[in-house]
Amino acid sequence: MRIKVIIPNSSVELRDEQTIHRKSVASPGTEIDVVCLPRGPVSIESSVDISYAAPSLMEEIMKAEREGYDAITIDGALDPTLRAAKEAVGVPVVGGGEASRVIALLLGDKFSVITMLPNAVKVAKTVISASGMSSRCASVRSVDIPVLDLKNYEATRNRILAEATKAIHEDGADVIVLGCTAMAKLALDLQGELKAPVVEPASAAIKLAEILIQMKLKPAF
Amino acid sequence: MRIKVIIPNSSVELRDEQTIHRKSVASPGTEIDVVCLPRGPVSIESSVDISYAAPSLMEEIMKAEREGYDAITIDGALDPTLRAAKEAVGVPVVGGGEASRVIALLLGDKFSVITMLPNAVKVAKTVISASGMSSRCASVRSVDIPVLDLKNYEATRNRILAEATKAIHEDGADVIVLGCTAMAKLALDLQGELKAPVVEPASAAIKLAEILIQMKLKPAF
Amino acid sequence: MRIKVIIPNSSVELRDEQTIHRKSVASPGTEIDVVCLPRGPVSIESSVDISYAAPSLMEEIMKAEREGYDAITIDGALDPTLRAAKEAVGVPVVGGGEASRVIALLLGDKFSVITMLPNAVKVAKTVISASGMSSRCASVRSVDIPVLDLKNYEATRNRILAEATKAIHEDGADVIVLGCTAMAKLALDLQGELKAPVVEPASAAIKLAEILIQMKLKPAF
Amino acid sequence: MRIKVIIPNSSVELRDEQTIHRKSVASPGTEIDVVCLPRGPVSIESSVDISYAAPSLMEEIMKAEREGYDAITIDGALDPTLRAAKEAVGVPVVGGGEASRVIALLLGDKFSVITMLPNAVKVAKTVISASGMSSRCASVRSVDIPVLDLKNYEATRNRILAEATKAIHEDGADVIVLGCTAMAKLALDLQGELKAPVVEPASAAIKLAEILIQMKLKPAF
Amino acid sequence: MRIKVIIPNSSVELRDEQTIHRKSVASPGTEIDVVCLPRGPVSIESSVDISYAAPSLMEEIMKAEREGYDAITIDGALDPTLRAAKEAVGVPVVGGGEASRVIALLLGDKFSVITMLPNAVKVAKTVISASGMSSRCASVRSVDIPVLDLKNYEATRNRILAEATKAIHEDGADVIVLGCTAMAKLALDLQGELKAPVVEPASAAIKLAEILIQMKLKPAF
Amino acid sequence: MRIKVIIPNSSVELRDEQTIHRKSVASPGTEIDVVCLPRGPVSIESSVDISYAAPSLMEEIMKAEREGYDAITIDGALDPTLRAAKEAVGVPVVGGGEASRVIALLLGDKFSVITMLPNAVKVAKTVISASGMSSRCASVRSVDIPVLDLKNYEATRNRILAEATKAIHEDGADVIVLGCTAMAKLALDLQGELKAPVVEPASAAIKLAEILIQMKLKPAF
Repeated sequence: MRIKVIIPNSSVELRDEQTIHRKSVASPGTEIDVVCLPRGPVSIESSVDISYAAPSLMEEIMKAEREGYDAITIDGALDPTLRAAKEAVGVPVVGGGEASRVIALLLGDKFSVITMLPNAVKVAKTVISASGMSSRCASVRSVDIPVLDLKNYEATRNRILAEATKAIHEDGADVIVLGCTAMAKLALDLQGELKAPVVEPASAAIKLAEILIQMKLKPAF
Repeated sequence: MRIKVIIPNSSVELRDEQTIHRKSVASPGTEIDVVCLPRGPVSIESSVDISYAAPSLMEEIMKAEREGYDAITIDGALDPTLRAAKEAVGVPVVGGGEASRVIALLLGDKFSVITMLPNAVKVAKTVISASGMSSRCASVRSVDIPVLDLKNYEATRNRILAEATKAIHEDGADVIVLGCTAMAKLALDLQGELKAPVVEPASAAIKLAEILIQMKLKPAF
Repeated sequence: MRIKVIIPNSSVELRDEQTIHRKSVASPGTEIDVVCLPRGPVSIESSVDISYAAPSLMEEIMKAEREGYDAITIDGALDPTLRAAKEAVGVPVVGGGEASRVIALLLGDKFSVITMLPNAVKVAKTVISASGMSSRCASVRSVDIPVLDLKNYEATRNRILAEATKAIHEDGADVIVLGCTAMAKLALDLQGELKAPVVEPASAAIKLAEILIQMKLKPAF
Repeated sequence: MRIKVIIPNSSVELRDEQTIHRKSVASPGTEIDVVCLPRGPVSIESSVDISYAAPSLMEEIMKAEREGYDAITIDGALDPTLRAAKEAVGVPVVGGGEASRVIALLLGDKFSVITMLPNAVKVAKTVISASGMSSRCASVRSVDIPVLDLKNYEATRNRILAEATKAIHEDGADVIVLGCTAMAKLALDLQGELKAPVVEPASAAIKLAEILIQMKLKPAF
Repeated sequence: MRIKVIIPNSSVELRDEQTIHRKSVASPGTEIDVVCLPRGPVSIESSVDISYAAPSLMEEIMKAEREGYDAITIDGALDPTLRAAKEAVGVPVVGGGEASRVIALLLGDKFSVITMLPNAVKVAKTVISASGMSSRCASVRSVDIPVLDLKNYEATRNRILAEATKAIHEDGADVIVLGCTAMAKLALDLQGELKAPVVEPASAAIKLAEILIQMKLKPAF
Repeated sequence: MRIKVIIPNSSVELRDEQTIHRKSVASPGTEIDVVCLPRGPVSIESSVDISYAAPSLMEEIMKAEREGYDAITIDGALDPTLRAAKEAVGVPVVGGGEASRVIALLLGDKFSVITMLPNAVKVAKTVISASGMSSRCASVRSVDIPVLDLKNYEATRNRILAEATKAIHEDGADVIVLGCTAMAKLALDLQGELKAPVVEPASAAIKLAEILIQMKLKPAF
């Protein structure tokens, strides 16, 4: 099967590394192609970013269907245009944010999301509330690092560890959800340190897309 | 004060009539200018329509701020890009859907929304759920008439009356909210017939925009 | 149009100042008359106060309708007898608490209410919960100053600033709602300091009453 | 122990019969005294009725405490002034509506309330919603019989049976709550017919008041 | 009337003391018999404990019905098998957890539960959430003392006082619910100290069982 | 990887057919072993059934971990002992009910569950409510066919089609969730007929178990 991974921003800097990671999580026999948007915001951290990315992202999604992909992932944590994409195409479309929360539901009572920027905290909360999952969400916290500064691995890891520890001990979370698809490499490392499940959204979206294809399930709309 | 009314679609057919109506609801001293989108969907009845209208709508919103308008209304019932608009500009932005529901809260215990097309029912429900107002919403019903066929006044009126009557007697609504800004002329007529308040979203947005200006209140983001 | 503002307590000390303020927020052409209750509690800070004010307040409300007022505001933040008033009369009745929360919904994701006394915190929470808006309320906090001691402007302002700052930074509020109609003069000053919208209930009720009259909307019951 | 039962209306017609019933449900050793309000509405079926009954009811409640009663019940299904009463006195105060719903929670998954008049349906729903129990309430239905016409036993019983049957089979209720304290005699008869628990509010309030006394529990406020 | 109190664990150490306490709270004329499980976990502090206790507990419940008891209490705070028990027998079955929360609803706006072990906090939250009462629950806190170490009265009391005080002042609780039936003797002492109602689950279950018998009410299923 | 599928009942009649089906949905390289309980109820359709199956099911779950399986599925739609299983073992445990609802969340706005027996409707609703997903559930309906009578393929299919059609057109569902793991073969057939996604719980659990293994995620407790 063939899955198109669409990174909903125009930042090509991280794409090569992300492509290697996305291909690494696919099952044997799954072909993964990764694209960024030809134009649009450099990262998705606000409702404004979501609005500007929308048509360009929708075009990539419909193009992927025409190209014969069996499923599509929107490789971001705030799920831009996700519902519209499900309306528009006849193959499974899975968003990173939705995927990671759905996996978290299988692992514990309450999850906390760790976003990069404080502004994304509010947007993530509205997305979670709109999905009807607020009662399973312990908190949304931010590490206050811009996505494009994530390259300092050690500093990022320590900031996330600090916030995730507060989420577990102060907010009552038992599962940590990463609120950005650019932190993918950190998940297993953090999980070992925290002794709690850490869900990474880009992988979650690809794995769920694979099983929707296998189960012959398509969007309802 | 000056308010820019942005109709979030590219249908110029109804614009003249809507302009007359919007100017008629403004207070003395309020200058109203009405625009459609230069490009974008012909009407907003799905999440796909919302995605495609987004950047064009955002550009009009930011242009309106640059032009010195004191407030902006998004003249639709599904509130496309509303949260992003509040992030992007420093003047009040009011959406028709949000405005009409907020007015409904002042009038009764539960409101029902009457949309044009069945597909918009699901979208309207997700918007209401995301706004945290589901417990005040008795139902969302549809008259199954495309927006651009609304010109048959009598037929539209009778279909809305039928659904609104069911909303009141079967679903427990006490306030009716029109789920389309192209039905503006019908509101008072329906209200007389139904003996229940009928809230029209385009007017609600303009009136609330006026008082946000007067109260010197701006979006939080 | 003529609006009757009914202060739901018998404290005449603040009335002159409040009358000046209420008249100042009315639109040109709106006539405002302000009354206190002829008998009843000196302020409304508990469910007991609400019970004792009830019949006297209802009598004033029905008297206002007989006197031909086009709308009525209940000039308090805990909305005493508000639903009953909407049942009893055929003109719009708007309560300060409801009005201020409804305006807050238009401005941000979550609001916090700042009340005067700790006891009013619990009562305000039950009012907000009954209105179905708990998911949009970040917190209710108190400054612990009795209403009748509000005259010390500077001390009151500093206490509110301190609690509002906590509401924004610790509780996640983006809009502040004043939980008392005797703090009206403070709103703009606080808003400048906090860099966040501050909604004042007495003004909110008057402005919403004006637009309900203009929209020809009456209570549902 | 001594319990004061306060019927929150001024209708003395039903009082003798109600006094006999209330005494019959008390435990051995419990002394029951029943009073109506000296003035106030003839029955409580709206928010207006609740407002008008309030101070007279509060006076009776505080008088009962001064008279040394160990607990008080507000013998109505819409719980007028209940929260205020708990603020005002230091002995247990139990309302019929609250008591009947709390007992229903012990018996099944979802309850339905059967009120007398259609208007009381809306008021009962706001009371249930304010109490946070909406998720356990299958429906509120009405038999459309004024309280003071309840004397036609057979007709009342058949109308309640019809609505309760719909509540069970159409709305998913498994417990029926009577929404009026004037139907007390019907409960066991209906329960036999419906093969479902039927909770009568006046008895529920007295029995719960007895055990709060025995457990030495008093209102929190 | 005869009530069977079933302690849902196999720890006979505390049984004699608990038997004396349970008999002491019964009304005159109520015969109380107390049993532990013949086999099963030594205490119920996790979902695993609940699963292991289940069939043994169900057998005791059905045996009690065969023995002619008029009602049954499940003498624990996490309500193991409670819903199943209501399905299985035709006499009232009341669980300590459910009973204590229902009594708390009658006393204040929000309750907090104080459990023994941190793990039980999460389980108690899922039970409360499943019961639809989360909006009335201020918090669940733990004193971190294993049930079988409760014998150190003074230390236990001080730890509970500390957590209950935080529940009241930091979480907004006005009623304290003990989250373990082995702390029964502490309730009145704590109540005096805290100046807030303290509800003890074992007593609450027995008293509610008594009144369900008196009201001739049986489970719905 | 090796997954143990535990059918939470003692009915061996359907096991061979179910084994063939479960193996057919596994990915290449996944080894599936299917067991029934050595003792316990013949099917799980009530809370009583869940209680009786509990310890036997827990023993099989812990035995599976000792046998070195990489994940476990509880092959039922009411998720008996699911939370306890996650507490007890260190490998992923996925329940059919939870798995099917989680997949449904990825496909549409609202799902409806179709159970076999009317009694299971109430139990399924309590499970969904406890999981915090009620706002995404349009309805739970029953076809009123005992699980062990499912062999009449045509009749079962037609009854499910009838209820699923009502769920879509009357209740507003856009995804159908089968409420029994014995209907597995029907899913694709129904999906073709209904033009809506149909989620089968036994497959959903296996596919999600596979990806939890691949993502190195384990239960939180």
